[in-house]
Amino acid sequence: MRAYDLILKKRNGKELNDGEISYLINGYVNGEIADYQMAAFLMAVYFKHLNHKETLSLTECMRYSGDTINLDGIKGKKVDKHSTGGVGDKTTLALAPMVAACGAKVAKLSGRGLGHTGGTIDKLEAIPGFRTSMTNKDWISQVNEIGVAIAGQTANLVPADKKIYALRDVTATVDEISLIASSIMSKKLASGADAFVLDIKVGSGAFMKDLDSAKMLAKTMVEIAESSGRQACGVITNMDQPLGNKVGNALEVIEAVETLKNQGPTDFTELCIELGKQMLVFALDIDENEAVKRLEESLLSGTALNKFREFVSAQGGNTEFIDNPETLIKETKQYEYNAAENGVIKGFDTEKIGIAAMTLGAGRAKKGDKLNFSVGFDFKKTIGDKVQRGEPMMTLYYNSGEKLERALEILKEAILIDRSDKTVKKELIFDIIK
Amino acid sequence: MRAYDLILKKRNGKELNDGEISYLINGYVNGEIADYQMAAFLMAVYFKHLNHKETLSLTECMRYSGDTINLDGIKGKKVDKHSTGGVGDKTTLALAPMVAACGAKVAKLSGRGLGHTGGTIDKLEAIPGFRTSMTNKDWISQVNEIGVAIAGQTANLVPADKKIYALRDVTATVDEISLIASSIMSKKLASGADAFVLDIKVGSGAFMKDLDSAKMLAKTMVEIAESSGRQACGVITNMDQPLGNKVGNALEVIEAVETLKNQGPTDFTELCIELGKQMLVFALDIDENEAVKRLEESLLSGTALNKFREFVSAQGGNTEFIDNPETLIKETKQYEYNAAENGVIKGFDTEKIGIAAMTLGAGRAKKGDKLNFSVGFDFKKTIGDKVQRGEPMMTLYYNSGEKLERALEILKEAILIDRSDKTVKKELIFDIIK
Repeated sequence: MRAYDLILKKRNGKELNDGEISYLINGYVNGEIADYQMAAFLMAVYFKHLNHKETLSLTECMRYSGDTINLDGIKGKKVDKHSTGGVGDKTTLALAPMVAACGAKVAKLSGRGLGHTGGTIDKLEAIPGFRTSMTNKDWISQVNEIGVAIAGQTANLVPADKKIYALRDVTATVDEISLIASSIMSKKLASGADAFVLDIKVGSGAFMKDLDSAKMLAKTMVEIAESSGRQACGVITNMDQPLGNKVGNALEVIEAVETLKNQGPTDFTELCIELGKQMLVFALDIDENEAVKRLEESLLSGTALNKFREFVSAQGGNTEFIDNPETLIKETKQYEYNAAENGVIKGFDTEKIGIAAMTLGAGRAKKGDKLNFSVGFDFKKTIGDKVQRGEPMMTLYYNSGEKLERALEILKEAILIDRSDKTVKKELIFDIIK
Repeated sequence: MRAYDLILKKRNGKELNDGEISYLINGYVNGEIADYQMAAFLMAVYFKHLNHKETLSLTECMRYSGDTINLDGIKGKKVDKHSTGGVGDKTTLALAPMVAACGAKVAKLSGRGLGHTGGTIDKLEAIPGFRTSMTNKDWISQVNEIGVAIAGQTANLVPADKKIYALRDVTATVDEISLIASSIMSKKLASGADAFVLDIKVGSGAFMKDLDSAKMLAKTMVEIAESSGRQACGVITNMDQPLGNKVGNALEVIEAVETLKNQGPTDFTELCIELGKQMLVFALDIDENEAVKRLEESLLSGTALNKFREFVSAQGGNTEFIDNPETLIKETKQYEYNAAENGVIKGFDTEKIGIAAMTLGAGRAKKGDKLNFSVGFDFKKTIGDKVQRGEPMMTLYYNSGEKLERALEILKEAILIDRSDKTVKKELIFDIIK
């Protein structure tokens, strides 16, 4: 077998069999197949795609390319949740304690952010003392004890995806559904859960820019899970505006706490209930109405907030901020961003908002960049809101005048105001794919 | 500017401007742009192509990536000839002395063979003592003195093409017309001639498998030449069977000599007259009829053969073989290949014939492979000929029984015999593109 022939085969639109895909992936991981051949192959895949069988084969091949995690030590059905990434997406921070408070087991591995989207691990590290690095054994014990643990991914989980993703990232081959689906699902399957709730973001701040692509991605991932004997559902959600009001690591932790106190933004609370519902249906085998009832009760009664406190404490975090959120924000100045004209907010370029946040120091332009946890945005207005010239739209938390200038320059083009008076309303949840 | 953005732009079907193409090519040549980014770009070009403007820009950029040759030291109009490569293509060996005998100046740089097609330099080296390596000064002096010189390409002519071609060769991105055209024309333009006659092979033994692609390639190359202020014409010729009867380095030299003695195969002689005609029209500004008359006369009178003798002698070759061709074939055995059934030869898989010749040692599977000049084939039958079971079809010249076995295995599938009695006739020259 030669890599050349497999590139040619895919370029000519033919299906590769399991042996051929495994030859390519294993050869690439162990260094026998060169970067340039894999790059040409990936670009051929961008144009000719992988069908269901090939996508499954690629997923399985990557899944077993390194360590896999065995969750048998945790009793009951393990449900994982994954988001394809968005701006202001602090869902895991609130959702994990909510479903744990309802009796589900959440053993979650999360990643760091890159580019305009943030990572859960970065957000958790905004909490003083919080440990995201833990042994497998401690992580599993903690889930058994309190129902929830969130750790950073270990070094050798799905190394094939790590190497291939790094190459896709510099060769303009990221946005192909079969590659995205196999990248996500190989990691999810290697992480050992029994069922997956997949939050697929669509819109200006997401990888998927249109609803059809998002549905196709959801369908592909659900099929992969089912072909591997797992359960999954895809929830297609709106990323045409940041999720919630706050963007930035510490600010998002604060918003998650507000939500757990049942004082969070409507859209974000609604999303947590929807995703939590799907998780509880899988984990506890209860019906949807019962799931929603329990989740709402966890917010009203304070059991979700208590679970969060217990979780932070178990991973070494100082819980003072839960009662005094402002203590999380350090050494920043605030800038009020006001509307430049009268009108209705008809939309956001959410990717630009993510980039503006990154510019302030909330995200990484490249791997290894150091974050400033305290900087970010707090929006006062959202899509459909009327604004008047000079009225506050958002507060910027910043620590460098120069960075503020650059962020403001980007934000100018990121908030779209319609001068007419017509009503604009956006849905939050577009579809559920099972 | 970032390579990533240019890959993305081409992947999305957008036109790159001159500055962008030059950034990519120069960056790749000087090592600032990685192999894997260029590989992804080339695959995107395979799918989205380069338009006329981009192809021209790529050609110019590669043309000036290394040394260029100045032919001002040669008086008169300099005409170069190029073949896209085929099996049994010994055209330059006969054509160059023919047109030189008619008064045209031929300053030619040629290459070595790789894969199933041979190179003129390899064939010339089958002549004992023949020097293919010469200084620019000597090469130009020889053209001024006797009208013809053929040398191997210098190391630093169009290094961008060398590097990009090597990458295309291992990433399944060779067969894209804009890339083939710019690769050929960058070298032709850097070699300094005023006009080019381009022999574009089409058929089972050529890069171009169908007539439409061959015409498109011819048109693209002629346009590039004209946009660069040169003249060119493309002659589309049949490569559904080997050219002439002989395949193999020394055997092809012998067939060229037979042709110069006016005793060569009809198809090969016809091709030399057609290409020679186009060259003389450019070089001497005479009409086509006059050109054909002069070429035919050069064969009848022996002036072409004398010019060949003079040329071989000038480059240090022993001319004994011209009168005793059999002296060129050394230490080989002969094997008669007979027809397995009655019928009419309806076609050849010419690429397989080239590969069978390579297997005997006449060609290179990879760069640097050592050739055996004496091995090869001598066909007794061609397309349209009737054959009877057991009748000789060709003679194989070989020096290893094991290699013979392998070559025979390949040949079995390369000669297609039709059992019906219908007439099959193939054209040699399909079209002339100006």
